[in-house]
Amino acid sequence: MKKLEQIYEGKAKKVFETDVYDFVIVDYKDDATAFNGEKKGTINEKGIINNKVTNHLMKMLEKKGIPTHFVEEISDRETIVKKVDIIPLEVIVRNIIAGSLAKRVGRPEGEKLSRTILEFCYKDDDLGDPMVNQYHIFAMKWATENELELISDYSLKINKYLTEYLKDLNIELIDFKLEFGKTSDGVIVLADEISPDTCRFWDSVTGEKLDKDRFRRDLGGEEDAYKEIMKRLLGE
Amino acid sequence: MKKLEQIYEGKAKKVFETDVYDFVIVDYKDDATAFNGEKKGTINEKGIINNKVTNHLMKMLEKKGIPTHFVEEISDRETIVKKVDIIPLEVIVRNIIAGSLAKRVGRPEGEKLSRTILEFCYKDDDLGDPMVNQYHIFAMKWATENELELISDYSLKINKYLTEYLKDLNIELIDFKLEFGKTSDGVIVLADEISPDTCRFWDSVTGEKLDKDRFRRDLGGEEDAYKEIMKRLLGE
Repeated sequence: MKKLEQIYEGKAKKVFETDVYDFVIVDYKDDATAFNGEKKGTINEKGIINNKVTNHLMKMLEKKGIPTHFVEEISDRETIVKKVDIIPLEVIVRNIIAGSLAKRVGRPEGEKLSRTILEFCYKDDDLGDPMVNQYHIFAMKWATENELELISDYSLKINKYLTEYLKDLNIELIDFKLEFGKTSDGVIVLADEISPDTCRFWDSVTGEKLDKDRFRRDLGGEEDAYKEIMKRLLGE
Repeated sequence: MKKLEQIYEGKAKKVFETDVYDFVIVDYKDDATAFNGEKKGTINEKGIINNKVTNHLMKMLEKKGIPTHFVEEISDRETIVKKVDIIPLEVIVRNIIAGSLAKRVGRPEGEKLSRTILEFCYKDDDLGDPMVNQYHIFAMKWATENELELISDYSLKINKYLTEYLKDLNIELIDFKLEFGKTSDGVIVLADEISPDTCRFWDSVTGEKLDKDRFRRDLGGEEDAYKEIMKRLLGE
């Protein structure tokens, strides 16, 4: 497969056209951003780790019956994925209160929720990815009722599978962000990535943060934290 | 009925105990606030207008089958209402994009929505009444699934009845805020007020704003606007 021209560059990834219909190549960068791009930096080898961790978890989820955009890892930083139209919603899945939810509801980080919370944010950098609800989503036609139901159902299942999987590796899944896309034949699949950039991972024993909060909050040790996640998941 | 000690003072109303079990007296003030209390002022006779407009609309809604806290108007500014435990949610009902929704989704004020939007905000001044969704509401136990379903159903019906009623008076109902409470026998009823403080009313012909946005946005003429609403609704 030939890597052709770049068709998109986001904060953490580039996407390239290929010579195969409906396949594109994702290329992971080391660039780190936070607070809607206001804070910028680099985490050494983050691109490699996020590529491998994402693919590892997507393969696990595929086996459990969750359709994903994953096709094939072709290098340390590059993966072939199905081309999708991204549904313009970020789905945030929360098991433990942290980050913006702690601020929103005035409760301490680390408090276990009595049930899983899903939040939906409209993907728009200029608007700061505002939280929206199902009424906004239907009125603005960002997704249909059937699509939102399917996305919600997948998100809760993904949460179950990831939580179980990570528990055995002494990683507590606090919260994470998902994105879904529609392939050319109209199938909704999990897209984007599942990595320390998009999840909060806490060590189950020590409570240590093993994710992008180390960068966001200037805690230091972000490279080691990302490497530790890769080591626990892939043994590398 | 005797008016006893004051048990609560909010931004626009005081509430007094009475000598009758489960009845309290609401006393409407002329104080006007906006932006979570940051902007303060007075609108002359607002208390009288909001008392009468609220009671007029609650009586209309009762006739349509919506249970409310209204019992009896006893003076220009005072009304006997059922004592309720307020459900800590503001329900915002939107027909036309305006205010915070315009900012949230980056769309112009005045754009008609393809369907009615309900928003829920957690009533907490210190947190700035943050918008929440049904997952937050259930996880935080602010309302049960049955309660939220009932509140949502009432809100959509109230929107239908108010929109129809106001249309004949050349008033377009852009959006409004509702609060619900639970009486001592566990019945959920519409509480708080329905007034130019809590609704956006636009003149159907001229588009003129006849509500608190005149105060919020320093447009001037807020007293005349409030009086115009009372005149159209009550003929006074």
